[in-house]
Amino acid sequence: VTAAQRTRLDRESRRAQLVELGVEMLSIRPLDEVVVDDIAAAAGISRGLLFHYFPTKRDYLVAVVQAAADGLVRVTEPDPTLAPLDQLRSSLDAYVAYVEANRPSFVALVRGAVGSDPQLLAVFEATRERIYLQVARGLGLHDDPPPVIRMLIRGWIAFIEELTASWIVDAPTDGSGPAGTLDREAFVTLLERSLVQLLELARDEPLTPPRRP
Amino acid sequence: VTAAQRTRLDRESRRAQLVELGVEMLSIRPLDEVVVDDIAAAAGISRGLLFHYFPTKRDYLVAVVQAAADGLVRVTEPDPTLAPLDQLRSSLDAYVAYVEANRPSFVALVRGAVGSDPQLLAVFEATRERIYLQVARGLGLHDDPPPVIRMLIRGWIAFIEELTASWIVDAPTDGSGPAGTLDREAFVTLLERSLVQLLELARDEPLTPPRRP
Repeated sequence: VTAAQRTRLDRESRRAQLVELGVEMLSIRPLDEVVVDDIAAAAGISRGLLFHYFPTKRDYLVAVVQAAADGLVRVTEPDPTLAPLDQLRSSLDAYVAYVEANRPSFVALVRGAVGSDPQLLAVFEATRERIYLQVARGLGLHDDPPPVIRMLIRGWIAFIEELTASWIVDAPTDGSGPAGTLDREAFVTLLERSLVQLLELARDEPLTPPRRP
Repeated sequence: VTAAQRTRLDRESRRAQLVELGVEMLSIRPLDEVVVDDIAAAAGISRGLLFHYFPTKRDYLVAVVQAAADGLVRVTEPDPTLAPLDQLRSSLDAYVAYVEANRPSFVALVRGAVGSDPQLLAVFEATRERIYLQVARGLGLHDDPPPVIRMLIRGWIAFIEELTASWIVDAPTDGSGPAGTLDREAFVTLLERSLVQLLELARDEPLTPPRRP
């Protein structure tokens, strides 16, 4: 490698390190409490040097959220060697595990504390769409499904976000669940069955509008 | 009435007028585009006088959102003379009509463009809880239902918000629906049945955790 290439690699790996520290911080505190000085200190660099890699705090946060979203999409990637419902189950299992490892951030995100930053909103919207596509693919809906199916799956994603946020607030870390709430396995079952239940609505004849040429 | 009482009434009715103008504006543009100068102009007062009634723009917006939320809760109030499912249907009908009359605001709110203002978030959270209580009451769940039922209804509220936001974007104003999407009546039916489908999950034995003393 040339000196220019090495510098480039150094720069990339330094950026990646800073983003990784941010993603780690998201596992213990919500996004709006991520402090750039703490990140710089953890990386052993000055605050000024951090801003050399990311022009603004917002640029940094967008990169961190994008990396966290990529992580979620990666762990929930359906395993194509499994049957559709097993794919769904295993993705939901990974989803809940991911959320458990990132409680404060997840709850804050779902509860809307993320703010109205258009770039962050774009990352969230793109992430929901990637999850939608994963689910649709896992169910064998390779082409563009009918609008009602798409609507139901997208609505279901909002449903499981809300459900998981309320579950995680009460769920103890050992997965047993306090009296009256569901344990981890029962909760994953609930998420899985909810999609099956909702998709049955698309079969109901009266819902289907008449085909127009 | 004394002079002091009259002044108080004048003040209250002026405030109410300004809030009402804000609620009307929410029917044509999203919250973050509500401009205080336009409101003052519509009320025939100066911008300075508006700030006499509301110390900050945020105070004004919180009052407007609170009034809009009150409106939503009022129109969706279940009619106790109806059977439970008819109550649900009629509330959902009113919900969709309300959303249709406030498209840009509703879509912006659901898509998260509302920002992270804690007071606004508190209004949204309180509104979801009021809608939850309406639904629970409409279903005859007078006391605190089991956590799973509460979770399912709260999740369903997030589900219908997302569904209605995607439906409303495509739905034409005459309610007929473009090819492939649902018309208004079929859409309300979908919302209604989705709750029934989801609540069936609470009946499944394996989901229920063992009772602990």
